[in-house]
Amino acid sequence: MKNRKPLILVTNDDGVTAPGIAALIEVMKTLGDVVIVAPDKAQSGMGHAITINSTLRINKIKIYNVKAEYSCTGTPVDCVKFAVNKIMHRKPDLCVSGINHGTNMSINVIYSGTMSAAVEGAIEGIPSIGFSLSDNSIDADFTACKKIIKSIALKVLKNGLPEGVCLNVNIPKLKSELIKGVKVCRQAKAVWIEKFDERHDPNGQPYYWLTGKFENFDSKEKDTDIWALENGYVSVVPTQFDMTAHKAISEISKWKL
Amino acid sequence: MKNRKPLILVTNDDGVTAPGIAALIEVMKTLGDVVIVAPDKAQSGMGHAITINSTLRINKIKIYNVKAEYSCTGTPVDCVKFAVNKIMHRKPDLCVSGINHGTNMSINVIYSGTMSAAVEGAIEGIPSIGFSLSDNSIDADFTACKKIIKSIALKVLKNGLPEGVCLNVNIPKLKSELIKGVKVCRQAKAVWIEKFDERHDPNGQPYYWLTGKFENFDSKEKDTDIWALENGYVSVVPTQFDMTAHKAISEISKWKL
Repeated sequence: MKNRKPLILVTNDDGVTAPGIAALIEVMKTLGDVVIVAPDKAQSGMGHAITINSTLRINKIKIYNVKAEYSCTGTPVDCVKFAVNKIMHRKPDLCVSGINHGTNMSINVIYSGTMSAAVEGAIEGIPSIGFSLSDNSIDADFTACKKIIKSIALKVLKNGLPEGVCLNVNIPKLKSELIKGVKVCRQAKAVWIEKFDERHDPNGQPYYWLTGKFENFDSKEKDTDIWALENGYVSVVPTQFDMTAHKAISEISKWKL
Repeated sequence: MKNRKPLILVTNDDGVTAPGIAALIEVMKTLGDVVIVAPDKAQSGMGHAITINSTLRINKIKIYNVKAEYSCTGTPVDCVKFAVNKIMHRKPDLCVSGINHGTNMSINVIYSGTMSAAVEGAIEGIPSIGFSLSDNSIDADFTACKKIIKSIALKVLKNGLPEGVCLNVNIPKLKSELIKGVKVCRQAKAVWIEKFDERHDPNGQPYYWLTGKFENFDSKEKDTDIWALENGYVSVVPTQFDMTAHKAISEISKWKL
């Protein structure tokens, strides 16, 4: 870092008024100049969606007393794109997303709006981190998170991150003194076994809620994010966006398509 | 394959009435029993979004004369989940998505609803393929696509795919006889340089269209999907959903977080 304050972009997927982003902003204000561009409503499960078939609105807000703060009608990824392109006059030194109300471990990284914002930051070459707490409640206690987030953010500001890599940080729902430490690990192999909860509207027509059961195929392995969280550790998964299955190229090349 | 007809799930992101899905269905009907669950409207750029903050509606339709066909109010990923869980009574032998009106090469794989449906198929253990034609027009000519799609789909039905891998197939806008062949390749390193097109509503308030310029950092490399397409080949990129940056684990572990 040069002798200027770091410029930090904050977003999330639970919406700009969620307690989780308030906690994250509180920490980031101690580290640098903060710009907030976050969805104006909950955008959970939006994955890497962007708004291309409709338009975006941006509203100036005054909640957090930072350098600049806006709510956006779009997705978390839209927020990162808009912030970098239209609001900040340079790439920020750090992009943080969260604190998500609920974990984003394992396969959830691909469905998560919180993590997709961090992945978008990485795509744009910005050191980026997504933070999640394993507590879905609006009254979740983010106290233990703050020290951990500050420590990880400082490391990233100091060391940067490998090219094309962001961090997926999940924090267990535990008091500070009960958290055993931080594990750098891989995403567990797991899947959602879907269930669609069928209901009927007042006219008798069916509609569906997507729900499901989470199944961990990696439950015996100790190098996964699920293991870390279940055993009282903070999980840190270096996360990338190259979707190429490099190992499969030679096999499929043999098919002589 | 056993002595039964393959069961094939067809979806897309341009919506169930798009000419691209009609062409794909035409081919799939020659290969097996077809079930269609596709969005009732364009869902381009929806990435891996799922509908969890609101509900889904499913409507039986009768357009394509197949085993079963439905439109869905949700995203392409919702369509795959719903089809497998509520409509088909077993995992299909093949899940195909497309034919997208426009390419999904390089980094676009992460924003693409077409490819996210195929990736969701792979997550659920179904051999899955996303098809795209490099022609955005409603009047795009899918003639050349049909032979290529049939050939690739037959290979996948016969060979299966490696665990956790689906295929991202992009077809150049060329007459059949001008297509040079099929290249199995990797996604090019490229990025969108965003531009937000600012307009004003009748009340003078600003709104924005997301647009941008595509920048290819891999333009000299011949093993990429962009090179293949630009040089008259069909590109086939084996695509995976493990977001862990495995190579970065040891480096970040040294940080002693």
